[in-house]
Amino acid sequence: MEAVQVRRRSRQVRVRDVLVGGQAPVAVQSMTKTDTRDVAATMDEIYRLHVAGCDIVRLAVPDMDAARALRDIRRQTQMAMVADIHFDYRLALAALEAGVDKLRLNPGNIGARHKVEEVVRAARERGVPIRIGVNAGSLEKDILDRSGRVPDALVESALRHVGILEDCGFSDIVISMKSSDVRTMIAAYEMIADRVDYPLHLGVTEAGPSFQGTIKSAVGIGYLLARGIGDTIRVSLTGDGGEEVKVGLEILYALGLREKRLEIVSCPSCGRCEIDLFTVVREAEKRLLGEDLPPMKVAIMGCVVNGPGESMEADVGLAGGNGLGILFRNGRIVRRVAEAEMIEALVEECRRFRDEARAS
Amino acid sequence: MEAVQVRRRSRQVRVRDVLVGGQAPVAVQSMTKTDTRDVAATMDEIYRLHVAGCDIVRLAVPDMDAARALRDIRRQTQMAMVADIHFDYRLALAALEAGVDKLRLNPGNIGARHKVEEVVRAARERGVPIRIGVNAGSLEKDILDRSGRVPDALVESALRHVGILEDCGFSDIVISMKSSDVRTMIAAYEMIADRVDYPLHLGVTEAGPSFQGTIKSAVGIGYLLARGIGDTIRVSLTGDGGEEVKVGLEILYALGLREKRLEIVSCPSCGRCEIDLFTVVREAEKRLLGEDLPPMKVAIMGCVVNGPGESMEADVGLAGGNGLGILFRNGRIVRRVAEAEMIEALVEECRRFRDEARAS
Repeated sequence: MEAVQVRRRSRQVRVRDVLVGGQAPVAVQSMTKTDTRDVAATMDEIYRLHVAGCDIVRLAVPDMDAARALRDIRRQTQMAMVADIHFDYRLALAALEAGVDKLRLNPGNIGARHKVEEVVRAARERGVPIRIGVNAGSLEKDILDRSGRVPDALVESALRHVGILEDCGFSDIVISMKSSDVRTMIAAYEMIADRVDYPLHLGVTEAGPSFQGTIKSAVGIGYLLARGIGDTIRVSLTGDGGEEVKVGLEILYALGLREKRLEIVSCPSCGRCEIDLFTVVREAEKRLLGEDLPPMKVAIMGCVVNGPGESMEADVGLAGGNGLGILFRNGRIVRRVAEAEMIEALVEECRRFRDEARAS
Repeated sequence: MEAVQVRRRSRQVRVRDVLVGGQAPVAVQSMTKTDTRDVAATMDEIYRLHVAGCDIVRLAVPDMDAARALRDIRRQTQMAMVADIHFDYRLALAALEAGVDKLRLNPGNIGARHKVEEVVRAARERGVPIRIGVNAGSLEKDILDRSGRVPDALVESALRHVGILEDCGFSDIVISMKSSDVRTMIAAYEMIADRVDYPLHLGVTEAGPSFQGTIKSAVGIGYLLARGIGDTIRVSLTGDGGEEVKVGLEILYALGLREKRLEIVSCPSCGRCEIDLFTVVREAEKRLLGEDLPPMKVAIMGCVVNGPGESMEADVGLAGGNGLGILFRNGRIVRRVAEAEMIEALVEECRRFRDEARAS
């Protein structure tokens, strides 16, 4: 019995060393918020995104100076890079020339057919895929007039752009259809998932301030991933890009689509709680992140009702109460210690878990 | 076209003035983290939860002193209160006596049949529903031995407890089946949703530290609500109860299940962004929350690509760039102002939107 549905079958594209679609792991993306022409600042941000766990980074290319800057940036990073292009096909050509690994570009917006063909030819030569990125905020006027900003309109717009690329014999395509409305975005992706087999890039756009954006993204992206839909994700927050990556990864962890290095399961604490759980969890998290441990699940519980059950389920568990800490390893009680020693004991048991895992 | 599915039909129960199930709005719950016997501290927390927007508050009742404290607490609040009882049926009777509006109690854990019957009789007399709260951390040993901590085991356990209440002729039941694993929780609720028509209380238990817990809850609870499943929700965080309520409400807003007072849609900012968007959004949010405004959607965008589209979609919108702010109201451009004046202009347009809404 598995809640995450069988994953939708999609074609696979390659973005430098990152595979997107097919049965490849869901890739996490973000976008630099710096002025791309400021190479030093942009490199700093790319580095921070890389450290946070970002798989693919997108950069805005608003003009030719930005396109030229991509060349310097390319020299300094091996990270998979996407150039975000609007309106001007020469920017797309310059970005390809600079060595980007993917374009984000809506062919319907760049004008005459020969311009599209030129971009497609250059992309094909380099094995670079193109993401069609439809956004509820910038739909074509004729579609908008006919249908409004409904999910059908997003799908219609995406398929129109897809058609243009297909007419050029190009099928190395990724599709996104973002809306700031979670329900609209869910419905649009569910609709297109059955219509084409291109990999899908999921996102809630203009998600807003960090708290709201985190939750809107977790609901919208999480829903689709749980339905087996989605090959790469981008969380949009009006905030730090590293935070976008953290949220994206956490959504994948929540659905078991990626393995978390350290998962702490802890109770919300209630009137039954007999230890200062907030402090214990914070302190334990700090200590454990400083240790060299394998991916593992650690339970920290403050009572005897759900504590032992959850602790037994985890790799290492601690159930505190009555001035005592009961330590669990691999589902068995291994020892009891005084409350004052329980964090230390927890760390020790995690090390034992590691050593046993390495020995076996 | 609607992404949130038709809501599952459930019976309705009443928890003081809060209806749960049927077509009632999804109610948001939290739980006090104080020692229930400390009436003053518990009242403080109930007040904070109330202010945050909590509909129903649960209190742990670990002993007879806590049950007696409920009486004092009851006198001081009109909020819908749930007594959380484990093992001892006399605590349930004392809590009912104290005037609580709902019990959370698993009848299979309180022993002899006559004890269950006594609780059921007292609950029925007072029109008080009972939530069966199954938790993956405290499943019955026989079920666990047979099936492990899989979704089927949660469902089996819940149905067993339900059967005991039904045998006593009691059907004023709410069911929860929580797990710290999002996929397990989703699968269990999806399974039971087709088996019974009792209202469902959703939650991811032991969700862990605030950041992780927020995302696990948004994914798990959000998924089920989007599938039309769930009548009341509790977000569990190892952190502040008010935060639990805020997260719960934000999940409902994201799915359009509750109307948000002020929704700010803002872009993540990128290399195209021409204004200091983070500062503008923060400042605007602060200003607008201090105004007397109706529920409304405000877009704040930092470029001309998606800015105008999103701004037109909102009740009031601001698209900044090139030292200018373009103001939108009800989908139309209403004026252009210098960048330095754009927040003030935004506030003014929001007031105009309010005045027009009130006049019409």
